[in-house]
Amino acid sequence: MSSELHFGNLSVSIFGESHGAGIGVVIDGLPAGIELDTEKILGFMARRAPKKDGMSTRRSEKDTPEILSGFYNGKTTGTPLSAVIRNTDTRSQDYGNIVSAARPGHADYTGYMRYNGANDPRGGGHFSGRLTAPLVFAGAVCGQILEKRGINSCAHILAIDGVYDESFNTLDISEDTMESIKCRTMPVIDESKGDEMKEHVRAAAEALDSVGGIVECAVIGLPAGIGSPMFDGLENRISQAVFGIPAVKAIAFGKGFGFAEMRGSEANDPMYMDNGTVKTSTNNNGGIYGGISSGMPVIFTVAVKPTPSIAQPQKTVDFISGQNAELVIKGRHDACIVPRAVPVVEAAVNIAVLSFLI
Amino acid sequence: MSSELHFGNLSVSIFGESHGAGIGVVIDGLPAGIELDTEKILGFMARRAPKKDGMSTRRSEKDTPEILSGFYNGKTTGTPLSAVIRNTDTRSQDYGNIVSAARPGHADYTGYMRYNGANDPRGGGHFSGRLTAPLVFAGAVCGQILEKRGINSCAHILAIDGVYDESFNTLDISEDTMESIKCRTMPVIDESKGDEMKEHVRAAAEALDSVGGIVECAVIGLPAGIGSPMFDGLENRISQAVFGIPAVKAIAFGKGFGFAEMRGSEANDPMYMDNGTVKTSTNNNGGIYGGISSGMPVIFTVAVKPTPSIAQPQKTVDFISGQNAELVIKGRHDACIVPRAVPVVEAAVNIAVLSFLI
Amino acid sequence: MSSELHFGNLSVSIFGESHGAGIGVVIDGLPAGIELDTEKILGFMARRAPKKDGMSTRRSEKDTPEILSGFYNGKTTGTPLSAVIRNTDTRSQDYGNIVSAARPGHADYTGYMRYNGANDPRGGGHFSGRLTAPLVFAGAVCGQILEKRGINSCAHILAIDGVYDESFNTLDISEDTMESIKCRTMPVIDESKGDEMKEHVRAAAEALDSVGGIVECAVIGLPAGIGSPMFDGLENRISQAVFGIPAVKAIAFGKGFGFAEMRGSEANDPMYMDNGTVKTSTNNNGGIYGGISSGMPVIFTVAVKPTPSIAQPQKTVDFISGQNAELVIKGRHDACIVPRAVPVVEAAVNIAVLSFLI
Amino acid sequence: MSSELHFGNLSVSIFGESHGAGIGVVIDGLPAGIELDTEKILGFMARRAPKKDGMSTRRSEKDTPEILSGFYNGKTTGTPLSAVIRNTDTRSQDYGNIVSAARPGHADYTGYMRYNGANDPRGGGHFSGRLTAPLVFAGAVCGQILEKRGINSCAHILAIDGVYDESFNTLDISEDTMESIKCRTMPVIDESKGDEMKEHVRAAAEALDSVGGIVECAVIGLPAGIGSPMFDGLENRISQAVFGIPAVKAIAFGKGFGFAEMRGSEANDPMYMDNGTVKTSTNNNGGIYGGISSGMPVIFTVAVKPTPSIAQPQKTVDFISGQNAELVIKGRHDACIVPRAVPVVEAAVNIAVLSFLI
Repeated sequence: MSSELHFGNLSVSIFGESHGAGIGVVIDGLPAGIELDTEKILGFMARRAPKKDGMSTRRSEKDTPEILSGFYNGKTTGTPLSAVIRNTDTRSQDYGNIVSAARPGHADYTGYMRYNGANDPRGGGHFSGRLTAPLVFAGAVCGQILEKRGINSCAHILAIDGVYDESFNTLDISEDTMESIKCRTMPVIDESKGDEMKEHVRAAAEALDSVGGIVECAVIGLPAGIGSPMFDGLENRISQAVFGIPAVKAIAFGKGFGFAEMRGSEANDPMYMDNGTVKTSTNNNGGIYGGISSGMPVIFTVAVKPTPSIAQPQKTVDFISGQNAELVIKGRHDACIVPRAVPVVEAAVNIAVLSFLI
Repeated sequence: MSSELHFGNLSVSIFGESHGAGIGVVIDGLPAGIELDTEKILGFMARRAPKKDGMSTRRSEKDTPEILSGFYNGKTTGTPLSAVIRNTDTRSQDYGNIVSAARPGHADYTGYMRYNGANDPRGGGHFSGRLTAPLVFAGAVCGQILEKRGINSCAHILAIDGVYDESFNTLDISEDTMESIKCRTMPVIDESKGDEMKEHVRAAAEALDSVGGIVECAVIGLPAGIGSPMFDGLENRISQAVFGIPAVKAIAFGKGFGFAEMRGSEANDPMYMDNGTVKTSTNNNGGIYGGISSGMPVIFTVAVKPTPSIAQPQKTVDFISGQNAELVIKGRHDACIVPRAVPVVEAAVNIAVLSFLI
Repeated sequence: MSSELHFGNLSVSIFGESHGAGIGVVIDGLPAGIELDTEKILGFMARRAPKKDGMSTRRSEKDTPEILSGFYNGKTTGTPLSAVIRNTDTRSQDYGNIVSAARPGHADYTGYMRYNGANDPRGGGHFSGRLTAPLVFAGAVCGQILEKRGINSCAHILAIDGVYDESFNTLDISEDTMESIKCRTMPVIDESKGDEMKEHVRAAAEALDSVGGIVECAVIGLPAGIGSPMFDGLENRISQAVFGIPAVKAIAFGKGFGFAEMRGSEANDPMYMDNGTVKTSTNNNGGIYGGISSGMPVIFTVAVKPTPSIAQPQKTVDFISGQNAELVIKGRHDACIVPRAVPVVEAAVNIAVLSFLI
Repeated sequence: MSSELHFGNLSVSIFGESHGAGIGVVIDGLPAGIELDTEKILGFMARRAPKKDGMSTRRSEKDTPEILSGFYNGKTTGTPLSAVIRNTDTRSQDYGNIVSAARPGHADYTGYMRYNGANDPRGGGHFSGRLTAPLVFAGAVCGQILEKRGINSCAHILAIDGVYDESFNTLDISEDTMESIKCRTMPVIDESKGDEMKEHVRAAAEALDSVGGIVECAVIGLPAGIGSPMFDGLENRISQAVFGIPAVKAIAFGKGFGFAEMRGSEANDPMYMDNGTVKTSTNNNGGIYGGISSGMPVIFTVAVKPTPSIAQPQKTVDFISGQNAELVIKGRHDACIVPRAVPVVEAAVNIAVLSFLI
């Protein structure tokens, strides 16, 4: 197996290649009888879709999912919910020269080795960022179910190319804050920083280059006591899901690597009673202790590497002939995928969190 | 489930509480007929054991595992290999006052909420760092099997309290380097940094405080093509395993969060042929693309938070009475668990990597 | 989860409802680079399709699967192979009165209780026998991979309504025998028995009734040593898969219930060497000891209950109003589904057996 | 993996060999805070233990499990509950000649092939019936939790060597009936049949032979709506668990193979309202439709083959030298294991049923 999440009673199975007939997802184990707003699912997916703002791929992806099963009379049936997205606007010829010349930073060579050359290499095949569309579909479905239970998630761009947005207030994030971030083309807290980030992306694009960044994500409304110790806690499931997003190379909960320079007296979150509820006066641990939620916001950050597809000539190898080669990547590529990664991270965490509540 | 890793055909199931009768592990799915050197397993476990150097807990843990099954005539049988470690030197009375007063930074409160107060709270119960002993046992077993296939792993302390060791040479790490690191009381590359780190730990201990750090881990000898895309790749399995270690709060592959300030032209690892082998001239991606190994060393770092148990008074709550409280933690605790976390990280990665090869 | 088989590294996930947009399957974990003959897959599926012989449902099912992913240049890619079958000829109005009046012998009531009434009841929804079409697709794919390794499976009708076909020769079954059985409209060994069975089915249909039967299945070419003890052996996986077929109510390996009247001296299969190969002179155990293959043919039988949908009035309940009711089922139904179950049993065993070889 | 049941959130992992240091089980995923009566667990295990009645093995097994974890203050903690049973009275010398001469009907040869000769062959190693002791332990724990929810299970000997006990009344079984069956040395409904069975067993033993039989099992109190369609229903999980019992070769739900000679009008269970509850006036389907419980008793039967170990000379092969051989089995063996299989079947179904309720 490769492309399935199995979290307790919930399973999400993703399939497809970038330039094949279609991509899709099967979600097995959803609770039955939950109303889903399909417009809202499309709205979630639109946040991942390429924008016409010069920042993202010029490939026009309709990406309208067709629900094939598991949804009846506007509600989940409890049986597997599946959706298919057709691949239409594919220009495989753009990828002609990458069948054997590995794109540096991509999985062309490793995929070739893994599948003995039998995998579909066009557009990255199964490794394509396009596969995040069905992941976002699944996350949108899970997110709606979470919302009905008072649980909301939201991600934003924390950094692009060294430009930093504000961090979330780890003690208190409102649904309103979350909603306004989600409405923005650049999903940031401080919109001026978003503009600055855009400048950096444009500059990188002009330099035939790309930039990376950090996504910060929060989950609010999760009650204390969700998760499990050791290998099946919030951190384990969230990280397993999030590393399913191409280009993600790191994940940190709470202060993350910042703990390396803290002392215990500073790192430990002091606890107090607030109207009968246990709270912490700092939330360095990102709302998770021993893999289990504390009731405080769950907070984590995710590193997204710069888009590997750049228009500059790159040194590489032709892995079939076994020769050194120089590669110029054609095709349409985002100079920065961080903005599009934002809803994907949200989707991944929605799946992970919902899985504990089924 | 909570305390099981299920990686393809390999399963590792850990059980036990800090102050119960014993702790242990069942490893199901090992290949049959593999010779295991039990002395070497004990040697691996000794690296995790508390040291008599003033740096770690003064609890004398024998931690000698008894193998109950799956091992016959010096070889794995292929059937479940289990081992039990008795708990002997437990001083539950030291923990008397933490049954209801949550230790900040620990899972006392979240565990209470998760298990409705039924979990064994003594010494942290199932959340105790002591549970890493069976994890190390399993990792030692897996490591020996990997070694027979020419795959070696090694971790070292990259940082404690802001003091940084050298990083691994991500392009070329020798087995000899690995072996010498493993022999050191402070597992570092630059021993002078290890001494400096010790000073910081002692200073923290004297201040009734604790310090955190970073562990860096490398796997060499792993051929290209190991792993899978999306949810079942090297990054997914390694992170799921590593977040099973208490106090780990972040994981980063290759440059990790450093990618946020890099451009694609710098981040992409240029590829070249080296005597018929594909190599990369940088290894920013930590030897993994699309979840699959490239044949270059696999490199990742892990953030370890400061030991939450500190001897200073801390603000907390009594989660049974629902009152604010002040807590002074008694008992024997490491002022820094980073040195002991080193072999545990190695163990976790050994399990994850071996699982792909069965 | 409900509709997924997870066997080691192989996963088969089935989705869809009888009268929804479509049904399908995702197969994750197939080996890469295996040529598949799509005509042959259709041929396998045609064996399950309704026949125009008056014996089976008059619904015209095209059931042509569209492969969406995982198949490129005529070969498996190693990434998830998915296929969708559109539902076209659905007459939901036939099912109007069964939305709340449970069809006896069907899952209408139990499904209603399981899903709190949210499941799609039309045509049995996810419980419909139609869901065996994607199962057969998956089994056809797995079967082709097995054949390339010299492993063949074949099922036949052992009994319908008390009319018994010959049993397989459990010591020696040729591929030729298997091929000729598969070509027959009534898949039996002794065709005269097939004619007799047909008569019984017609008689039952005329009496507005239905009949059940037994399917016997064999797998040849499986080397000794495949499977595992206790919970993950051949018997465990085959039975888990086979009970996924609606109407299957029993499974027996080798002599099955016949063992109840045998003595050990008779039941034990004496062993001998045959040109360097271990064989048994009887095969009462159906080629499986301790969950592991012996190298002799694997043999099992499966009981298929009479089609629950019969045209006679039946006593039932309206599970919404909570009243007793009488029901007359309209729609198109097979008076005997045993012939169509034959390739489905083969498909199920193909998946189970292949899973041990990946 | 081989010896683990993974049912949704519940996992049961069994380890050990017959003549190794010990055997045991880890149960992960139990609800927290459930009181367990350890005396009652021992009572359940005693039903499986060899009797001093000449009917079962003369090996004196104490089989007292030591609970190592997951149990605190008389209650489950919610963390993994583990138990170990020491192997004490082992006479490995009795097995000296079976290391390479395969015992017909046993897994000696298949196990050898599976594990390339590395498995522990003494006393059957991991294939030994002794491994059912930890299975019974787990089933006893699960059974107590089910009882608290009003769900009870009971098995009895339906047949030994052609002597048949009464069948359960499939429409109505009382807890009292269950309790009285469990108290009997020969767990039957009609004790006179039990005496007759004993005679057959003694006769077989005198003839240096063994006999097989059938176990019938019922679960009462299970509400309607438990289970899932296709691959994760009651039949799938129960059969996967039950085939984990050595010597079980068949399982049938409700009428099982009897359906082959029934018509739909007879097989379908008519439904009616009984004081607001849906019931069926027959229960041919064993309380399961589409993998989901109907609220009627769940009923199934299991075929147990005659003990393969018989004292007569048997034709076999020496699988190391590759020669034909004659074998006379020494050691202590039951001439009939059906009575001891009864609580094991109950244990298996308890685990399967509880898994749906967590």
